[in-house]
Amino acid sequence: MSNRLFHFLKDIPEFSNYELFQTIFSNKNIKIERIVSYGQTTPKDFWYDQKEDEFVLIVQGSAQILYENQELYHLNVGDSLYIKAHQKHQVVYTQNPTIWLAVFV
Amino acid sequence: MSNRLFHFLKDIPEFSNYELFQTIFSNKNIKIERIVSYGQTTPKDFWYDQKEDEFVLIVQGSAQILYENQELYHLNVGDSLYIKAHQKHQVVYTQNPTIWLAVFV
Repeated sequence: MSNRLFHFLKDIPEFSNYELFQTIFSNKNIKIERIVSYGQTTPKDFWYDQKEDEFVLIVQGSAQILYENQELYHLNVGDSLYIKAHQKHQVVYTQNPTIWLAVFV
Repeated sequence: MSNRLFHFLKDIPEFSNYELFQTIFSNKNIKIERIVSYGQTTPKDFWYDQKEDEFVLIVQGSAQILYENQELYHLNVGDSLYIKAHQKHQVVYTQNPTIWLAVFV
């Protein structure tokens, strides 16, 4: 990684039809990403079921994450959620835009 | 970890003479911390020299990190720095208060 300094709030396109993913750093143990959401949510019948743990933090905006057991997490700026591997979940709401830090462990 | 949801901006003491460290999650590969600084800086003759990589993101406030080669990084809200292991560094400024996310890899 050449660029050690990264500005999560800068160089955000005004709109995109798709969520934007940018890898800040990765090695064999972790991957650090910036994700920008523009109101996108997970399709209703689809559940993320990941083999890695995922830690997310809202840097700007807000979002809601639903677990398969119907636990609903309202995330605002500065709120984080540690999602264990194979915890099935959906993103059911994102403010337009929402900037996430995601760490895959 | 019982508490998967964590609010980085909440439950911050108004002042402390020391930086506050709180581990959000840790396993054999990583440790995720919240650090709250109240204007503290690194003693002038001391250099952090860590065996782990450290990724930091400013969630609130601002800070300046100096590398041994005199590179100076000004970090505001949403700015992150990936500090490689054994990259000697000092924190030469922190706004009061500054809230950091730190990930040790």
